[in-house]
Amino acid sequence: MVETTAGVVGLGKMGGNMAKHLLDEGFEVYGHDLQPEARETFADYGGIVADSGRDVARRSDVTITSLPNSEIVKAVYTGEGGLAHESVETTFLEMSTIAPPTTEAVAEAVEDTPAEILDAPITGGPENSRDGTLTGLVGGKEAVFDSEHAQNVLQALCAELHYAGSSGAGHAMKLLNNTMSMGNLLLAMETVALGARYGIDSERLWDILGNASATSVAFESRMPRVLERDFEAGFSVDFARKDVGLAVDMADSEDFPMVMGSLVHRLYTQASDEGFGEEDVGSVVKMFEQELEDQVGGE
Amino acid sequence: MVETTAGVVGLGKMGGNMAKHLLDEGFEVYGHDLQPEARETFADYGGIVADSGRDVARRSDVTITSLPNSEIVKAVYTGEGGLAHESVETTFLEMSTIAPPTTEAVAEAVEDTPAEILDAPITGGPENSRDGTLTGLVGGKEAVFDSEHAQNVLQALCAELHYAGSSGAGHAMKLLNNTMSMGNLLLAMETVALGARYGIDSERLWDILGNASATSVAFESRMPRVLERDFEAGFSVDFARKDVGLAVDMADSEDFPMVMGSLVHRLYTQASDEGFGEEDVGSVVKMFEQELEDQVGGE
Amino acid sequence: MVETTAGVVGLGKMGGNMAKHLLDEGFEVYGHDLQPEARETFADYGGIVADSGRDVARRSDVTITSLPNSEIVKAVYTGEGGLAHESVETTFLEMSTIAPPTTEAVAEAVEDTPAEILDAPITGGPENSRDGTLTGLVGGKEAVFDSEHAQNVLQALCAELHYAGSSGAGHAMKLLNNTMSMGNLLLAMETVALGARYGIDSERLWDILGNASATSVAFESRMPRVLERDFEAGFSVDFARKDVGLAVDMADSEDFPMVMGSLVHRLYTQASDEGFGEEDVGSVVKMFEQELEDQVGGE
Amino acid sequence: MVETTAGVVGLGKMGGNMAKHLLDEGFEVYGHDLQPEARETFADYGGIVADSGRDVARRSDVTITSLPNSEIVKAVYTGEGGLAHESVETTFLEMSTIAPPTTEAVAEAVEDTPAEILDAPITGGPENSRDGTLTGLVGGKEAVFDSEHAQNVLQALCAELHYAGSSGAGHAMKLLNNTMSMGNLLLAMETVALGARYGIDSERLWDILGNASATSVAFESRMPRVLERDFEAGFSVDFARKDVGLAVDMADSEDFPMVMGSLVHRLYTQASDEGFGEEDVGSVVKMFEQELEDQVGGE
Repeated sequence: MVETTAGVVGLGKMGGNMAKHLLDEGFEVYGHDLQPEARETFADYGGIVADSGRDVARRSDVTITSLPNSEIVKAVYTGEGGLAHESVETTFLEMSTIAPPTTEAVAEAVEDTPAEILDAPITGGPENSRDGTLTGLVGGKEAVFDSEHAQNVLQALCAELHYAGSSGAGHAMKLLNNTMSMGNLLLAMETVALGARYGIDSERLWDILGNASATSVAFESRMPRVLERDFEAGFSVDFARKDVGLAVDMADSEDFPMVMGSLVHRLYTQASDEGFGEEDVGSVVKMFEQELEDQVGGE
Repeated sequence: MVETTAGVVGLGKMGGNMAKHLLDEGFEVYGHDLQPEARETFADYGGIVADSGRDVARRSDVTITSLPNSEIVKAVYTGEGGLAHESVETTFLEMSTIAPPTTEAVAEAVEDTPAEILDAPITGGPENSRDGTLTGLVGGKEAVFDSEHAQNVLQALCAELHYAGSSGAGHAMKLLNNTMSMGNLLLAMETVALGARYGIDSERLWDILGNASATSVAFESRMPRVLERDFEAGFSVDFARKDVGLAVDMADSEDFPMVMGSLVHRLYTQASDEGFGEEDVGSVVKMFEQELEDQVGGE
Repeated sequence: MVETTAGVVGLGKMGGNMAKHLLDEGFEVYGHDLQPEARETFADYGGIVADSGRDVARRSDVTITSLPNSEIVKAVYTGEGGLAHESVETTFLEMSTIAPPTTEAVAEAVEDTPAEILDAPITGGPENSRDGTLTGLVGGKEAVFDSEHAQNVLQALCAELHYAGSSGAGHAMKLLNNTMSMGNLLLAMETVALGARYGIDSERLWDILGNASATSVAFESRMPRVLERDFEAGFSVDFARKDVGLAVDMADSEDFPMVMGSLVHRLYTQASDEGFGEEDVGSVVKMFEQELEDQVGGE
Repeated sequence: MVETTAGVVGLGKMGGNMAKHLLDEGFEVYGHDLQPEARETFADYGGIVADSGRDVARRSDVTITSLPNSEIVKAVYTGEGGLAHESVETTFLEMSTIAPPTTEAVAEAVEDTPAEILDAPITGGPENSRDGTLTGLVGGKEAVFDSEHAQNVLQALCAELHYAGSSGAGHAMKLLNNTMSMGNLLLAMETVALGARYGIDSERLWDILGNASATSVAFESRMPRVLERDFEAGFSVDFARKDVGLAVDMADSEDFPMVMGSLVHRLYTQASDEGFGEEDVGSVVKMFEQELEDQVGGE
C-alpha cells in the first residue's frame, strides 16, 4: 500500500474526530483551524499543526475540508490565501454539508490548479467519525475516486462508500437522502399523533405499523425514543431543517417545484420556531400534539 | 375445536375470494350478493346461497361483510331488512375499507341487538385473500376478538392478526398505515425525480438510497417497478387516493389539521386527474417528470 | 304585482329573520321548525305555524328551506314525510350552505314532483337577513328564477341578486366566493405577521398595503378589527372552515386537486383546533404570532 | 428649491428610464453602466457619463442604484472600487428588488462612510418609471427620507411615496405586497378553474365574484385579460416567482414558517417549469386547466 499523508482543514467536531481517527490508523496528519483550542487538541492527539489551510494542502496527498457552511467553504477555497491555488497539488475531499451549486463553483476553481477534488459528504454522527464507521457519498471524477490515495483515506473513515456521480452528486445525494428520511419521519409523527387523537394506544400502533407497509428507517430509528419522550439530540431539528432547506434550494435552481419537500422544510422551520431546534428530530411530534391527553407515549 | 359456520355478505373480489378460501378450509359457508353472477360463482364453489344478507347472518356463527363503501355498509346494516336486527345473533367481521365514523355508527346499531361486531379490515391483495395470507387489523371488544368462533375465521384468513383497540380502531389503523405508506412513496418519487433532474442516475440513486436512512417499505416495494416503467396496478392510485382521503376525513372529524396527509391526498387526486388513476401507485413519479430526458429508469 | 304566499322551513337565525322580514314586507308567511321555541317566536311575529314542513310547502307559492347541513337538507326533502312529494306544488328556494352534490340530489328528487326548485344561498349576516340587504346567488332553471313568485320573494330579501347557472351553481358560487375570500384573508394575515416579525409596524403596513396591489375585500374588512384586537365573531373561523371544506369536497368530486384551497382548509382547521373556532376569522392571525412582541396591533 | 444633482448606477430598463425622466425634469444627471450601449443611450438623452459608479456617487447629491440582483448590489457597494467608500458623500437610493438581509448588509457598509442610504424599491412597470408615476416604498432613517435632496428626486420619480420604516423596510414592504398580491391571484385562478370544471361560465363568475367579498386588486387586474386569453407579460411569472422567493428567504431568516407563501412560491416555480415563465402572471390559470373544455374564457 502506498503511504498517504492526510490533511484536515477545519478541526471542529466532525473534522477533529476524523483527524484523530486517521492518526489512530497510523496516518501522518497535517491540520489547521482558526480556533487555537481546536489546533491544540489536534496537536495533543499527535497531529502536525500547519501554518494555514493552504500549507496543510501543500503537505498532504489527500486534504479533507470539513466546514460549517457554503459561504465559508467558498471563502476557504477561493478567497485570499485560499486552497485553490497553483502551488497546491493534493486531492481534496470536501466533506461539509453544502449546496450542490457551491460544490460546483469550488470544483471549477480547483480545475484550474494541479489539484483534484471530490465532494464526499458523510452521514453518521460524531461517534461514527471517531470509529471509522461513516457512510461516504462521493461525487467527482470516477478515476480520482478510484485513485489509491483517495481510497486509502476514504476507506479508513467509512464503513460504506458509494460513488454517486459527477461533481456535486455526492452532496446532492446526501441532501436527497436526508430529505426523504426527514419527510418520512414527519409523516410518521403526524400519523402517530392522529392515531393518539383518535384514541389508539401509541405502543400498540408502533407494534403494528412498525412491522407493516407503513414503516421506514426514519420511523424505526425515532419512534422508540419518542415513546420514551427522549428528545436528546442525535440529529437535531435544526440540522434537518438545514439539509432539507439546501435540497429545496437545489430544486429551485433546477426549476423543480418540490411541493412535498418544501412543506417538509416549512414544518421543520415551525418546529425550530416553536423552540425545538436543538432537540432531536423526533420532537416534531410535539407540534402535532395539542393537549396532554394526546401525548404520544411517555407515561 | 368448536365448529364454526361462516357467512359472507358481499361476494365481490375480496368477499368472494375469502368465501372460497373458507370453503377450501372446510367451513360451511353461507353467502349473499345482489349480483346473480356473484351468487352463482359462489354456489359453484360449494357455498350455500341464502335469501338475504340477514338470512346469512341468522345462519352463521361469524358473518363477514365486505362491501364497496361507507354508504353501502351503513345501508346494509341499518337500512330496511338490515343486518342489525333483534333476530340476528352472530359475530360480524366488518372488512370493508370505510371511515371510522361509519364503523362507530354501525357498531352502535349492532349494540342494541344480540349480535357482536368487530371491524377487521385486511391488507393484502386478492391473491392473499385466496390463500389466507392477509394481515388483519381488528377493532372492537377484546373479548369478542378472543372468542373461539371469531378466532377460527380470522386465523383461517390471516397470516398475521393484530388487535388494534376499541371499535373503529381496526379501520383507523389501516387508514393510518396506508397514509404513511403512500406518503412515503410520494416523497420518494419526488426526491427521485429531483435527483434525475439534477443528473443523478436513478439506478445508482436506488442502489444508494434503498440501503440508507432514506428508505422505507413503500420505496422498496415500488422503486424496482418504477425503474422498469412497470405501472400495472398492484395497488392503484385511485385506491391510495380513497384511503388517504378517508384518513383526512377522520382527521377532520377530530379537528386535526393533518397538513402533510392532506397534501398527499391532493397529489394522488392530481395523479388521478392526470389520467393515472387505474395505474399502480408508482406512477405518481410521472407527475414529477416534465421532459423525456428526466424520465426515471426504463431505457 | 301577483300576490305571493311564502313559506319558511327551518326558523333558526337565518330562516327566522327572513320570515320576520317577509312578514314586515306584508307577505302571508307559513312556517315550521322542530323546535317549539322557534315556532312560538315565529307566531309572535305574526307567522302562521303549519303542521309540518310538507304542510308549509303545500300552502305556499314559494317555500324557503334554511337548514344546518347537507344531511338535514337531504332528509327534509327526501326522507319520510319529506318536501319532495307529488302533493306539493311550490317553488322551493334552498338557502342553506350545503355541498353542490346534495343540491343536485335534492333537485333530482323534486324533478319528479309538480314543484320547482332553485338553490339560492345568500351571503351576509343575520342583520342583512333582517333588513333585506342580503346578496342572493341563484342556481336552477332560468325560467323559474325569472318567474314572478320567485322574484317577489327573492327581491324582498336581497339587495343584490345574481343568476349563477344551472342547478347547484348558486351553492357552488357561494363556496367559491368564500374560499377565495377566506384564502385572501389567510394570506394577508400570514404576510402581516411576517412583517411584524421583521419589525414593520402593523399600522403602517396597513396604511400602505391596504392601498396597494396587495389588497382585497377580505383584508380591508378584517385588518382594522385585527389592529384593534377585536375578534368578536362577525363570520366565525368555524363557518369559514365549513365553507372551505365544502369547496374542497366539491373539488374532490370533480377530481380537481385544489392544492391552495386545501391548505386554506387545513389552516382554518388548525385555528379551530387552537381554540379560535367561535372567534371572528381575523383571529387566524394569532396562529402566525408566536411571541408577544410580534403581536399585530392592539397595544 | 435647492438644486439637486442626481446619479444613476445601472442604466438598464428601470435605471435608464428613471435617468431619462430625471433629465426631462431638468436635473443634472450622472450615470454609469458596465454595458457601453447603455452608456451611449444615456449620453444621447443628455446624461453625463462618469468613469465609474464611485465617480457617479462622488458627483451626485442623490445616487440611485438599480441593479439586477442581490449579489450584484452587494458587489457594487462593498466590492473593490465600490460605492461604500470614505471619499463618497451622497444619499443613496437603493432601488433594486433584493432581499432585506442584503439591504441591511449594504446599509451597514455605508454607515462607516460619510454617505447616507435609503432602500427605495419601486412598484410599477417601465412606463411608470418613464413618466414619473411609480410608487416608492422607502426604508432607512426618517430624517434622511425627509431631507430636501432625497425628496426632490423621490417626488420627481414617484406619484406615491411611503415611508415604510427603518433600513430594509422598503424592500421588505415591496416583497410583502407582491407576495399577498401574487397569492391572491393564484387563489383566484384556482377557484376560477374549479368553477369552470364544475360547469360555471367564467364570464358570469367574474361578473359575480369580481363584485363580491372574494375580490382583490390582483383578481381585478388579471381576470379580464385571462378571459381574453391575453398572456403577454405585464408582470411575468418569473418576476412573481423571484419576489415571492425573496419573501420566503426573508421568512426563513426570521425562523417564520410561512406555509402559504411557500406553497405560492412552489406554484409559480411550477408555472415556470411548465413553460410560462415569461408570460404574464395570469397564465398560472393554465396550470389548473387540464382539458380544453375547462378552459377559462377565450372562445
